[in-house]
Amino acid sequence: MILTLLSIHLTANAATHPNLVINQQDVAAMQQAITEPGAFRHAFEVKLKQVDIGLSQPIEVPLPQDSGGGYTHEKHKSNYQQMYDTGIIYQLTGEKKYAEYVKNMLLQYAALYPELPVHPKRKNSNAGKLFWQGLNEAVWLVHTIQAYDFIYSALTPAERNTIETGAIIPVALFLSEQSPHTFNKVHNHGTWATAAVGMTGYVLNKPLWVERALYDLDLAKNGGFMRQLDELFSPDGYYNEGPYYQRYALMPFVTFAKAIEQNEPQRKIFEYRDGILLNAINTTVSLSYNKLLFPLNDAIKSKGIDTVELVNGAAIAYGLNGDPRLLDIAKQQNTILLTGDGLKVAQGLDKQQQQPFAFNSGLYRDGKRGDEGALVVMRNGKPTDQTLVYKATAQGLGHGHFDKLTWQFYDQGNEIVSDYGAARFLNIEAKSGGGYLPENTSWAKQTIAHNTLVVDETSHFNGKVKQANEHHPTIHFYEQQQNLTLASASIDSAYDDVAFKRTFALINIPQREAVITVDILKVTASQPHQYDLPVHYQGQLIDTNFDREASLTQLSTLGSANGYQHLWLLATANLAQDNPNDTLARVTWLNDNGRFYSHSTLVSTNGKHQQMLFTQLGANDPNMNLRQQPAFIYRVEASNHTFVSVLEPHGEYNPAKEFTLGATSNIAALTHHQQAELSAVHIRFTDGEQYLLAINHSEQALTEQPRSVININGVQYPFNGRAQLLGPLNTDSFD
Amino acid sequence: MILTLLSIHLTANAATHPNLVINQQDVAAMQQAITEPGAFRHAFEVKLKQVDIGLSQPIEVPLPQDSGGGYTHEKHKSNYQQMYDTGIIYQLTGEKKYAEYVKNMLLQYAALYPELPVHPKRKNSNAGKLFWQGLNEAVWLVHTIQAYDFIYSALTPAERNTIETGAIIPVALFLSEQSPHTFNKVHNHGTWATAAVGMTGYVLNKPLWVERALYDLDLAKNGGFMRQLDELFSPDGYYNEGPYYQRYALMPFVTFAKAIEQNEPQRKIFEYRDGILLNAINTTVSLSYNKLLFPLNDAIKSKGIDTVELVNGAAIAYGLNGDPRLLDIAKQQNTILLTGDGLKVAQGLDKQQQQPFAFNSGLYRDGKRGDEGALVVMRNGKPTDQTLVYKATAQGLGHGHFDKLTWQFYDQGNEIVSDYGAARFLNIEAKSGGGYLPENTSWAKQTIAHNTLVVDETSHFNGKVKQANEHHPTIHFYEQQQNLTLASASIDSAYDDVAFKRTFALINIPQREAVITVDILKVTASQPHQYDLPVHYQGQLIDTNFDREASLTQLSTLGSANGYQHLWLLATANLAQDNPNDTLARVTWLNDNGRFYSHSTLVSTNGKHQQMLFTQLGANDPNMNLRQQPAFIYRVEASNHTFVSVLEPHGEYNPAKEFTLGATSNIAALTHHQQAELSAVHIRFTDGEQYLLAINHSEQALTEQPRSVININGVQYPFNGRAQLLGPLNTDSFD
Repeated sequence: MILTLLSIHLTANAATHPNLVINQQDVAAMQQAITEPGAFRHAFEVKLKQVDIGLSQPIEVPLPQDSGGGYTHEKHKSNYQQMYDTGIIYQLTGEKKYAEYVKNMLLQYAALYPELPVHPKRKNSNAGKLFWQGLNEAVWLVHTIQAYDFIYSALTPAERNTIETGAIIPVALFLSEQSPHTFNKVHNHGTWATAAVGMTGYVLNKPLWVERALYDLDLAKNGGFMRQLDELFSPDGYYNEGPYYQRYALMPFVTFAKAIEQNEPQRKIFEYRDGILLNAINTTVSLSYNKLLFPLNDAIKSKGIDTVELVNGAAIAYGLNGDPRLLDIAKQQNTILLTGDGLKVAQGLDKQQQQPFAFNSGLYRDGKRGDEGALVVMRNGKPTDQTLVYKATAQGLGHGHFDKLTWQFYDQGNEIVSDYGAARFLNIEAKSGGGYLPENTSWAKQTIAHNTLVVDETSHFNGKVKQANEHHPTIHFYEQQQNLTLASASIDSAYDDVAFKRTFALINIPQREAVITVDILKVTASQPHQYDLPVHYQGQLIDTNFDREASLTQLSTLGSANGYQHLWLLATANLAQDNPNDTLARVTWLNDNGRFYSHSTLVSTNGKHQQMLFTQLGANDPNMNLRQQPAFIYRVEASNHTFVSVLEPHGEYNPAKEFTLGATSNIAALTHHQQAELSAVHIRFTDGEQYLLAINHSEQALTEQPRSVININGVQYPFNGRAQLLGPLNTDSFD
Repeated sequence: MILTLLSIHLTANAATHPNLVINQQDVAAMQQAITEPGAFRHAFEVKLKQVDIGLSQPIEVPLPQDSGGGYTHEKHKSNYQQMYDTGIIYQLTGEKKYAEYVKNMLLQYAALYPELPVHPKRKNSNAGKLFWQGLNEAVWLVHTIQAYDFIYSALTPAERNTIETGAIIPVALFLSEQSPHTFNKVHNHGTWATAAVGMTGYVLNKPLWVERALYDLDLAKNGGFMRQLDELFSPDGYYNEGPYYQRYALMPFVTFAKAIEQNEPQRKIFEYRDGILLNAINTTVSLSYNKLLFPLNDAIKSKGIDTVELVNGAAIAYGLNGDPRLLDIAKQQNTILLTGDGLKVAQGLDKQQQQPFAFNSGLYRDGKRGDEGALVVMRNGKPTDQTLVYKATAQGLGHGHFDKLTWQFYDQGNEIVSDYGAARFLNIEAKSGGGYLPENTSWAKQTIAHNTLVVDETSHFNGKVKQANEHHPTIHFYEQQQNLTLASASIDSAYDDVAFKRTFALINIPQREAVITVDILKVTASQPHQYDLPVHYQGQLIDTNFDREASLTQLSTLGSANGYQHLWLLATANLAQDNPNDTLARVTWLNDNGRFYSHSTLVSTNGKHQQMLFTQLGANDPNMNLRQQPAFIYRVEASNHTFVSVLEPHGEYNPAKEFTLGATSNIAALTHHQQAELSAVHIRFTDGEQYLLAINHSEQALTEQPRSVININGVQYPFNGRAQLLGPLNTDSFD
């Protein structure tokens, strides 16, 4: 190890302060900017006022006692934020009182920290001392080391020594040498720890700490920041836990990377792995709808692109590449950072240089090599256009949900077919101490909480994380055309006997001003099973085209385990088994956005027992932790079955202006055809117009030449490439 | 009758057109305005584009067939709107094609109407021919007569004859002579009918029709517009059905009044009854929160101050009085009318002359003489400040709810303690044809659907409208001070054996940055009864300070009738009967606005059986018509009981910024004291600070001099006038 150390380039430059996210040039530019009107000076004035209020109050560094949301927890959080803010105000104004305040708080931490045992409320293996979780301790140091860097030059050597030996070094050692498991872990907790320790290494001129942060405690490259960059993001910048944790994880990634760039530009950290960090920032922003991140896996649904992590990410990215579309995001974030990059953003916005950030369809591959499934997003460019999210990703470790091949749908600003997200009230003490609720495991993670297939009332992989982490879906194709986006994926490992393949198409029919979703879910098994396909809809049920038998005076749970124990069964419909022709089971609801949505599913004629169940969440919930959301579940008893469904937004309910238009579905009939690798969904609208969505499921790459011909009722329909929407068809017949 | 006719001033002036809401001077001013940039020209351009699209499509006047929301219903509605819009564009541009289009549509109506039977889907005694309800027919004529007036000068005498004899005269006769019951009715249906017929009288130079509209068919003044002005509004401009119908009713009132003002200014219609119409417009706007009208009685909750009726009302009022606070409302409405008054509004907004409309506390007396109860609004001036609505009004006829002395509470833009409003999906055919749902009667009107006392699971007045219309609450006092607003009312007729008196106070404690509501509900009876006091809260339950026994796997209804059959019983708590001291039963919830709310109720020590029941709406609802709202119900078995409760907004839940503050209530204890006419609520906060709300309930008027002294635990507390908040108290003891 000693040999290794000697071979390190000792490039950390302790002579200039500050030199982490903000350097001396940045400070000079910012000092100039606050003398001129504009967004930056405004942000400075607001922050100055806040900081001055802080200065008027006594410093309090309490003995750690409370868990998340509790007093001491929140106080230590606000302390590091206040040290950071006050430090930057010192840099911008040069007024000693600000440095003095930060120094005094740091001295209190230096007096407190050495005596602290591990936190009394610690809950998991990664305990902290100031906080119940070591994670919070790392966040504390990421902020505090920057604050210390800001006031470094204002301190005497003796003061520095007291603060470093009392607080900063012990915290850094606690996070690294004394917590090797977390520090070396390729996981966001590891990223916070390595960022904290690495940045401390730069400020304290301890190059070993930087190297350990980059390459793990033993410099063995089994963990550390570089390994995290290699493994935690896919080549498309997708983070395996999903956008909610991606946003959170971004903060230490971009912060530490920026510090590396300032101190050791020769590492070209932002170019690493084809610019994986900028890619990840862009991907996180893209994985949002109407400013909110897609709630995949454990995700609190109110998190959006305006969170502080993405404000940082967008600013740092803009500082590097000057992409004017990032200014569009910055404008929506409505927060200007007091950093060099924040200044560039402010100047760009002052000059109104922003260009619309395009929310386009895309395939975001999962897995460090991009071969572990993918997240597919189908959308039309504007932030509130119809958006279909098709989740064919890998499990996403401990925060993953058992929801292979699930989907979500958004329209006109709202969730239409939704995902529950996480069952958690962040930092509310009365709700399981602000952590994940028991219902996160018993409901939110279970398959039935999502819009995908549940076999025999058991969750995918039997709800076992270890097993789930070993498997992922196979992506068959992703195809994007002018008015048609498709993707197909399958998985045969979620259940022992059952494989399923799901193909989604988002179809724009401009001449009808219609955007519809086609969903083909083909299930195969050797034995008969019970298949449940839920749709968690957002809105008020308006109508169904079949009779429902409602439970009027008593409710019971739908099942007893795997999430089913949380569902009240409101109504049941037995769908006809012996129709002469296939029919549609249609459910229409009204969303708060004032639009109607009809979900039409093919009811097949093959004598299978088919039901539609209407449920509401909330059973077995003694603490009323769950939201009372509705769903309908299509249930089929079969061994092989293909679910074919269409979701159609239509009409408008406008009680303010007293009109209602198009409250009923425009889809009259569907049929589904399968001929070897070819399949087709035939759609007839109520006005008689007919369309055919023809798809070639071949595993080969396909050219754009006509090469497939599907035969329907004796008529040959040739089509191009992977898929085509044919129509309006020139035919009077409907099979 | 002939004699009466001869004595009428024949002042209707048929020589000038247009001369209803818009006169020739208005037209000249508007023609000038559209040559200059500004809000008015913008509104004109938008409307012109719309009208031009209409012109490019074939005219369709279908045979009436559908009820509300159906195709022919909506078509005839859009036709009258289109005739009106196209007519005004003709006036502004002078282009013949617009007049031609209106003429052609009118000719089609003239061909259709004479042959029409009553509408096939008619539902009530007031049937129409073009529409299922005569009400819609009257609205059709109010618009159509204005459109006809716009193009009158462009028609030949023969065309006028065809249109008048084929469509306009028959509709007017159908609405008047042939529907005498509705025409003479002192009710909003009567207002639409009289407005339609009266305005037609001006255009067709039929002064008798104007007189009939003003004074009823027999000119006997038992009905008609003037009688409606006398009786439908209270002296404070409150409409007895509540703001939802007030908004709707305003349209024909202000439209017809404006036409009267233009044609017969000597009638001084806007000065009538101390300016009752302007008063009513102002009151309607005032009875709103965050742009939405208070949902009292049958009310669809999405109706707000931006509805077309209030756009008209605000514009006409501004045209008369130039009040710059009406421009604030007009700005929020964001709609400029193409009328003379609309032009004045546009010019005022162009010059940014608006001043904030003050949303102040107020007492709105009910009843034509102002002696039938009142609506009390307690608020602090800004549209989204805390607002308490205390409903101590009369029943409000057929659309009234059985909710004597109920309340609602709003904060930070949202409903906190809410009223269900109406059970209705306006114009959605699948939902009972778009009319009121069965659940409007079985749930929404029942007492348990509101936040007021229910005795023995029966509704006020046993749910009988006739009986309810004969009674109203008594207002004891309404008092407004700097940081304290109070009101007290009672009713002894809602139940045979039970009388109840309720006193609300909205208290602002600036030094604590707290705004709390105190609610004292005193119930007296000769026999024991079951008293239920529900709180319909909006949000997610966070915590209670008592144990709840939840129904985990089975739910049953709370009761079997009077609305109770719609409630699922989620959980029950038996509150201690034998505490040594009074305690508080506290329920805390989190609203979507990110703030916590704690409702604390005194649990008395007198051995009464006391429970808290947690319910959710949705039982006995086969068509899923109801929203799944939660409530908690405080249940007491007693003959006399005083409910004392405090509602306290606190803290902030901000998951986007990852902090939670003040999630727990700050109120530690309450006691209630009653000494003859004096009462006091003693409040102790968790930090030890104590306050005393002292009230003198005397029926006499009270001066501001100290004159009352209440004795609490041997300490004398003198206070001034009606009520005073004393504190922080200089005492260590809490009784």
